[in-house]
Amino acid sequence: MDRVEFRRRIMAANDAAAAALRPRFASSGTLVVDVVSSPGAGKTSLLEATARRAPDSLRLGAVVGDIATELDADRLRAAGMPAHQIVTGGACHLDARFVTDALDATDLLPLDVLFIENVGNLVCPASYDLGEDFKVALLSVAEGDDKPFKYPAIFARASVTLITKIDLLGAAPFDLGKAIQQIETLNPEARIIPTSIATGAGMETWWELLESELEAKRPAHATS
Amino acid sequence: MDRVEFRRRIMAANDAAAAALRPRFASSGTLVVDVVSSPGAGKTSLLEATARRAPDSLRLGAVVGDIATELDADRLRAAGMPAHQIVTGGACHLDARFVTDALDATDLLPLDVLFIENVGNLVCPASYDLGEDFKVALLSVAEGDDKPFKYPAIFARASVTLITKIDLLGAAPFDLGKAIQQIETLNPEARIIPTSIATGAGMETWWELLESELEAKRPAHATS
Repeated sequence: MDRVEFRRRIMAANDAAAAALRPRFASSGTLVVDVVSSPGAGKTSLLEATARRAPDSLRLGAVVGDIATELDADRLRAAGMPAHQIVTGGACHLDARFVTDALDATDLLPLDVLFIENVGNLVCPASYDLGEDFKVALLSVAEGDDKPFKYPAIFARASVTLITKIDLLGAAPFDLGKAIQQIETLNPEARIIPTSIATGAGMETWWELLESELEAKRPAHATS
Repeated sequence: MDRVEFRRRIMAANDAAAAALRPRFASSGTLVVDVVSSPGAGKTSLLEATARRAPDSLRLGAVVGDIATELDADRLRAAGMPAHQIVTGGACHLDARFVTDALDATDLLPLDVLFIENVGNLVCPASYDLGEDFKVALLSVAEGDDKPFKYPAIFARASVTLITKIDLLGAAPFDLGKAIQQIETLNPEARIIPTSIATGAGMETWWELLESELEAKRPAHATS
């Protein structure tokens, strides 16, 4: 078996596990969001801010992937979001079986929104279906405005890209228009939101997007 | 063949290719440095600054890995460093066979220093021996001071860690002492240099380190 065939089998096994997750999420009415970025682009900070913005009536939860440490799940729990840390050992991304095992080991579901905070890696997580409704990519201003074309897979696949840390515009060289143009070239349908946790910029737009996705997800009987 | 066995075979094939690179580098007297970081931590900027600092008599060159685009090799050539771009397609790291193919396809060698600029990824490149003399890890202040413990493999393995963009200290929350302590815990022998391309901080220390590694590499006949 060569490398291509081995990879095909890995992806097929992942797709099967993701396909088994979808009815599980559907039956609990859960909106599932896979959050992907480089290390330090602000995934955990985004989820902390989202937990603080959400009304108490909305059930949010997270599974969080990291190579090592429980730091991120600790931060989310402190912000009021139930969270389960997946310590991947060496794995550079989450796959659908990691998510399945995490859900089996916990009583996180049912939830209104499940966030899957992926391992900090702009490459490997792009290929893996986790049964999510959509992927969100984060690109930090500090990373530079040339990154979408250099790491095209995730920006082509993510329905939403948040350009984070825009409070650093000026301190770090970054042409916002150039980055947006690259993302739009890769994915003409993408929603692109410039944000800053430090100033709150864009956070209300992010929140409204989540609310509208939740609304679209509501079962028909709830609106009839 | 299961996943563990497949990974063992991949690593064995890589180690064999790396072992074949070492005599090639030794016969040309080339110091080889594998540069690893997250996307946007400043690998290309570091090499640009190094090219500008080096005397004309020193032969520097680079092979540069990216998922897509030739942007980084273009930047290095513009800074006066011969560079060959390896477009990995989807691969999330360079392996020793990519480097071998790049050297076979070019006349880069002989060089005094060959930089291998890895794909922007703090996870996968840590495992791969590229026949280098040492690995340099870059950690940007914008990524946050908790990253060494979250991505321990590369900081344990890199002989040198540059903490980059220290001009952003103050603009981005980052405890320099905390980051240094984590790196030292993972690797008590590590050389740690806080740097900024914007202000030039630490660049002379980086340059002196390179010079001293070059001196240590000189063949015995040159000093006898």
